Amino acid sequence: MAMPANVKTSKDFPVPDKMKAWVLNNPGELELVEKDVPVPAKAEVLVRVDAVAICATDLEIIYHGPPAEIQGGDPFNKNFTPGHEYMGTVVALGPGVDEYQIGERVTVEIHAGCGQCKRCRQGMYTSCHNYGKNYGDVNKGHRANGFTTDGGFCEYQVNNINTLVHVDDSMSDEEATLVVTAGTAMYGLTELGGLVAGESVVVTGPGPIGLMGVAVAKALGAQPVFLTGTRDNRLEIGKKLGADHVINVRKEDPVEAVKRLNGGMGVDYVLECSAAPNGINEAAQMVNRGGRICLAAFPGENPQVDIAHLVRNNIYLYGIRGEGKSATHRAEAFMRQKRFDSTLIHTHTFDMDDLLEAIRYAKDRVEDAIKVVVKNKHAARQKVAAE
Amino acid sequence: MAMPANVKTSKDFPVPDKMKAWVLNNPGELELVEKDVPVPAKAEVLVRVDAVAICATDLEIIYHGPPAEIQGGDPFNKNFTPGHEYMGTVVALGPGVDEYQIGERVTVEIHAGCGQCKRCRQGMYTSCHNYGKNYGDVNKGHRANGFTTDGGFCEYQVNNINTLVHVDDSMSDEEATLVVTAGTAMYGLTELGGLVAGESVVVTGPGPIGLMGVAVAKALGAQPVFLTGTRDNRLEIGKKLGADHVINVRKEDPVEAVKRLNGGMGVDYVLECSAAPNGINEAAQMVNRGGRICLAAFPGENPQVDIAHLVRNNIYLYGIRGEGKSATHRAEAFMRQKRFDSTLIHTHTFDMDDLLEAIRYAKDRVEDAIKVVVKNKHAARQKVAAE
Amino acid sequence: MAMPANVKTSKDFPVPDKMKAWVLNNPGELELVEKDVPVPAKAEVLVRVDAVAICATDLEIIYHGPPAEIQGGDPFNKNFTPGHEYMGTVVALGPGVDEYQIGERVTVEIHAGCGQCKRCRQGMYTSCHNYGKNYGDVNKGHRANGFTTDGGFCEYQVNNINTLVHVDDSMSDEEATLVVTAGTAMYGLTELGGLVAGESVVVTGPGPIGLMGVAVAKALGAQPVFLTGTRDNRLEIGKKLGADHVINVRKEDPVEAVKRLNGGMGVDYVLECSAAPNGINEAAQMVNRGGRICLAAFPGENPQVDIAHLVRNNIYLYGIRGEGKSATHRAEAFMRQKRFDSTLIHTHTFDMDDLLEAIRYAKDRVEDAIKVVVKNKHAARQKVAAE
Amino acid sequence: MAMPANVKTSKDFPVPDKMKAWVLNNPGELELVEKDVPVPAKAEVLVRVDAVAICATDLEIIYHGPPAEIQGGDPFNKNFTPGHEYMGTVVALGPGVDEYQIGERVTVEIHAGCGQCKRCRQGMYTSCHNYGKNYGDVNKGHRANGFTTDGGFCEYQVNNINTLVHVDDSMSDEEATLVVTAGTAMYGLTELGGLVAGESVVVTGPGPIGLMGVAVAKALGAQPVFLTGTRDNRLEIGKKLGADHVINVRKEDPVEAVKRLNGGMGVDYVLECSAAPNGINEAAQMVNRGGRICLAAFPGENPQVDIAHLVRNNIYLYGIRGEGKSATHRAEAFMRQKRFDSTLIHTHTFDMDDLLEAIRYAKDRVEDAIKVVVKNKHAARQKVAAE
Repeated sequence: MAMPANVKTSKDFPVPDKMKAWVLNNPGELELVEKDVPVPAKAEVLVRVDAVAICATDLEIIYHGPPAEIQGGDPFNKNFTPGHEYMGTVVALGPGVDEYQIGERVTVEIHAGCGQCKRCRQGMYTSCHNYGKNYGDVNKGHRANGFTTDGGFCEYQVNNINTLVHVDDSMSDEEATLVVTAGTAMYGLTELGGLVAGESVVVTGPGPIGLMGVAVAKALGAQPVFLTGTRDNRLEIGKKLGADHVINVRKEDPVEAVKRLNGGMGVDYVLECSAAPNGINEAAQMVNRGGRICLAAFPGENPQVDIAHLVRNNIYLYGIRGEGKSATHRAEAFMRQKRFDSTLIHTHTFDMDDLLEAIRYAKDRVEDAIKVVVKNKHAARQKVAAE
Repeated sequence: MAMPANVKTSKDFPVPDKMKAWVLNNPGELELVEKDVPVPAKAEVLVRVDAVAICATDLEIIYHGPPAEIQGGDPFNKNFTPGHEYMGTVVALGPGVDEYQIGERVTVEIHAGCGQCKRCRQGMYTSCHNYGKNYGDVNKGHRANGFTTDGGFCEYQVNNINTLVHVDDSMSDEEATLVVTAGTAMYGLTELGGLVAGESVVVTGPGPIGLMGVAVAKALGAQPVFLTGTRDNRLEIGKKLGADHVINVRKEDPVEAVKRLNGGMGVDYVLECSAAPNGINEAAQMVNRGGRICLAAFPGENPQVDIAHLVRNNIYLYGIRGEGKSATHRAEAFMRQKRFDSTLIHTHTFDMDDLLEAIRYAKDRVEDAIKVVVKNKHAARQKVAAE
Repeated sequence: MAMPANVKTSKDFPVPDKMKAWVLNNPGELELVEKDVPVPAKAEVLVRVDAVAICATDLEIIYHGPPAEIQGGDPFNKNFTPGHEYMGTVVALGPGVDEYQIGERVTVEIHAGCGQCKRCRQGMYTSCHNYGKNYGDVNKGHRANGFTTDGGFCEYQVNNINTLVHVDDSMSDEEATLVVTAGTAMYGLTELGGLVAGESVVVTGPGPIGLMGVAVAKALGAQPVFLTGTRDNRLEIGKKLGADHVINVRKEDPVEAVKRLNGGMGVDYVLECSAAPNGINEAAQMVNRGGRICLAAFPGENPQVDIAHLVRNNIYLYGIRGEGKSATHRAEAFMRQKRFDSTLIHTHTFDMDDLLEAIRYAKDRVEDAIKVVVKNKHAARQKVAAE
Repeated sequence: MAMPANVKTSKDFPVPDKMKAWVLNNPGELELVEKDVPVPAKAEVLVRVDAVAICATDLEIIYHGPPAEIQGGDPFNKNFTPGHEYMGTVVALGPGVDEYQIGERVTVEIHAGCGQCKRCRQGMYTSCHNYGKNYGDVNKGHRANGFTTDGGFCEYQVNNINTLVHVDDSMSDEEATLVVTAGTAMYGLTELGGLVAGESVVVTGPGPIGLMGVAVAKALGAQPVFLTGTRDNRLEIGKKLGADHVINVRKEDPVEAVKRLNGGMGVDYVLECSAAPNGINEAAQMVNRGGRICLAAFPGENPQVDIAHLVRNNIYLYGIRGEGKSATHRAEAFMRQKRFDSTLIHTHTFDMDDLLEAIRYAKDRVEDAIKVVVKNKHAARQKVAAE
């Protein structure tokens, strides 16, 4: 056993010394190598990775590196393992951990704040002022799985317990990988005020976060919930997830359509997930005076923004990163209670060994792929062994 | 006496039937005419206007009309009296009013919400959904003094009691006209969180609201407080009002300067009052991760905005209109307690009869004018009479 | 037609001059008399009362008068009509009202704030500082239906539009009378934080508000939801409304049971609806450090309270009155969406003419009565006429 | 040097291996012994203790042990060093610390949350769910200086950087020990809403926290500020710290007096610091409808509480423990800016060697003692050495 004495393990979940892990070489080049299984430190556990969903941000990192703001350097040719939407089984407990049990199924969120900066002290751990500082002499212990520290495209990964969410037995591995996506939508709705029962909400853009935004808004009681997008098949999924009205922006003006369907009034909230160049301005036209907009996506180029309209109409904008304020726990609760069927956005599953093919499906939207999940075969194997 | 029986008056403050009032004819053309003294309705008082400050928005309305969002039509040639930063003396009480006394000095804020829309019910009366509806069959009783209802460039005006702020005896008439300006800054800081003692704040743009923003931020204990601008004389006034650091953006890069002077870190809050095209982007670069920006001004053209930076850094933006959340009362309390000397921004006084000249000073910044105040002579006269 | 010209009516819903109304003579003595149909003023509508639920507070008022705090005098022998949980049909619109249509079904909440006090300006209209002032020279326009102004045990009643909630066609008249009860529970959960998905909540006391508290907490995603009480049949209804665990306090210690069933931990929130003498102390023992308690009921005598425990554990208490923050609208949205079956607490229906018998059922819990509803026959009759 | 290689030290501030420290033997028995100088771990620094103020809670712990809720056992005969209101100089940096510099003057707050429980994640570190767990196999790293971990009645103490507050050069050592007291008052006002400029506030009880409550409320702009108490000399100090009105409860009824002096109205906020048996009920009578009360003290016996009044008047109560939400930083900012003279409550200074005598002064209020401070001589000596 590779684990030191102060790490708790169990013979039911044996931990090997070595594991298979994908690492990022040059941009776009992933290689399957052997790595040491990492060791959990204080407040950390070791998670056996059972399934990982592929996110658009993973593709961005793999092909272009993480956003410049995050980290001085780039992640290429550094033995870095990407992947952040993973779930698995706790197989070892770092020193002092009793919040989780060995054998417990968990899914993970991305950000573990340093715990010692101003924002972490405020509970805003996704805005940690020591973002990325997990190295060298001034290691602050910040982790962003698959962004600034190794992620989940491998067999085992350590995780701060703050990033763990218990997974209910009724949820499949694949569904559990979607908790973080639903959690991001929940975080957005939280920052918009959260108490949206009976309030009107527009979600723009039927990507994974947008679709989960529809589902979570509806679970919270929002009514009516609108979804805008360009592809009818995606909009249909939105309907199944709870959208009262869907609007294909190729067929009608979304601002006009929203107002018409909302009794002539603007809506109370917009969750902007389209990343369209004019998304923010359309959102501002969609909300009524005093309305609020959550920016959960952004366009590649800097768009022109009608600031005057925001000021004159007392509109507030909330740029969100990730899934703060323990939103994943609230999202998981709704999923456990079967308030919506998140598996509607899971379209394909591959073996972890076939990650490159899985990425191709996700990247090129092969067969209308939405969420593509990769699974470790060993998971199934060890599950049998443990029984 | 013109007042009906259910309106309470006093012989100490006799109310005439007719008054002098400036009205707006064609764009830019004001005329002094005679009007009926208006009659206060339920929850309203009649204010004898003693002094009025001229705001940039007054000039905008007089020359171009109010913002298109506010009102279908324009205000020209409709017997409309502009002016919204006024103070005076209560001289008559509408039915059911006992919150104020005849003879009491008051200053006024702009917005009286309808009281029956969703936003008013939430306490967001400056975002009233019946904005401007003060006419016709569906009169909702909304008032925006000098915007959608008659304002203060006259001798008497009615006001909903919700727009009144008691003025302390220690405050001059001129100073009292500045309460609403300080109140706007206070509203902005309120929406940013309010508890700014020991927190770092940048105010961009040393116009009246910006300068009051410096004063209010300091009164609330913010430290350090930065002020950026293009004119050294304005920045000097900012220093006297509490700015720890002033930055002339013509001489140095304000983003770099702020970070250098703030220990290498971005600040917690920015109150954007510059209306500069790049103001919002510079503000976003000035705040640290998780920081907040209040937009209290806007550029004439739609600027390109770095949305990605807002999203990646979890930055929130608050577009504010006017002075909500009873902020004028908090501003007046600080002024009454002499926490800052707002009269530093009052530069010129004219007689109400000389409004056109006063407007020229304000518009062309003659003699470095900041706040230009016009006063009614009758005020002084009647004060004597009342003693 | 009795209605003045500025009140809008429709021939489809003819309004008589006179109506039948129950009035309160001596304590406990109700009499059915004829009254004038009231006339809606600005921001008011006339509601044809179709159904009224009987609340414990109605009984309190009828037998003892309203709480001393509310009003100087008592309501006896003043031609006062009690009843506040009513619903009906809009039959006339006061001046300026276009928010509702004639013929629209509505249910009503109790409080219409004055709109001009500090609390109303903050959106806290249930804490109006002009509570009860709806008379005499300083009429502030405050209304508390069936408390300080005439209520619903009659055929027609005026209502400020702020007290109206649209009723969906899918909801029966009886169900619609329960919106205000669910709204009170929603208000309590709102003040506790609102975002309770996946959080642990105890509701103490399975009266109407407690049972609706269980339903609303569950609709918001709370888990686990506990209900404590003394009667198994009521606890069974709680289970049907979403309680994960019910605890009969006659059979086991509720504090121990809650902690045992919650993994050894205290819960995050308690909604205290039991009015038990030790309810507040038990609630304080049930929550974990930093937990919150909403007091929606109170014991007849002043209990001894362990203040030290509250302070040492950073516990917050929220005494709530009525159903503020537009909570009825959120409650109605959940009911419209069929998130829970509120009709489980409706047990008996009587004709309005049989109010005395209905009150007996409610007061003495005849046949395990929970919510007893009285209906106006004319409603059914006129509905036919209108078709 | 005792410090390990990963701890940063400086020859300007040499750290000895051993130090003098007071330890608690039997209840009430303190002994001066020699202890090892503690070693700072990750996110910790070593503070050379320069001055310590004595708090009533210290006396409670020394004579009776800490509150039962905090910790299973008692602190007697365990080599435990009490004392929590201390300040000093940073002399060594634990691994990864660069937030503070060696030689920097700091004062400390009590609570360092575990950083991994639900409350810590919410920013509520004073309500840490792992309170006291700083030992054994499940060490969660929680610290409460002088409560559950060793405190400041010694020469050196380790502190989590989350508990540190920079001390401005303009502040004396004695003044710096008072930051935590002002911070507790600031925390109370924060939870009450924080934006109290122009709002009415009553502080009950002129102990150290009450007197600082007056000062902080006034610094935030509250007006009027009332202080109630039994001793005129304390009330006089309250006046100097900003109280607009002081009320000796032995001479007049405080509820009547407050309402009379507040224009007949109840106040908006009460900060209850009296610990009087009827303190909570009087506070409830003092606030207006919708008012809020912070409980910063508690009576020894459980008082009878008028729950009905709280519920009927929508009154909220906030039990607070310690000084959460980074309130000490806001308090220090006001002190640095000389908004009030906290030294008015510092009455006596002793040498650390004379702690027993200092405690006698504090306990028996000898010579009207309010805050008694003990200082380490070595501090003065080493300061010279360092220059």
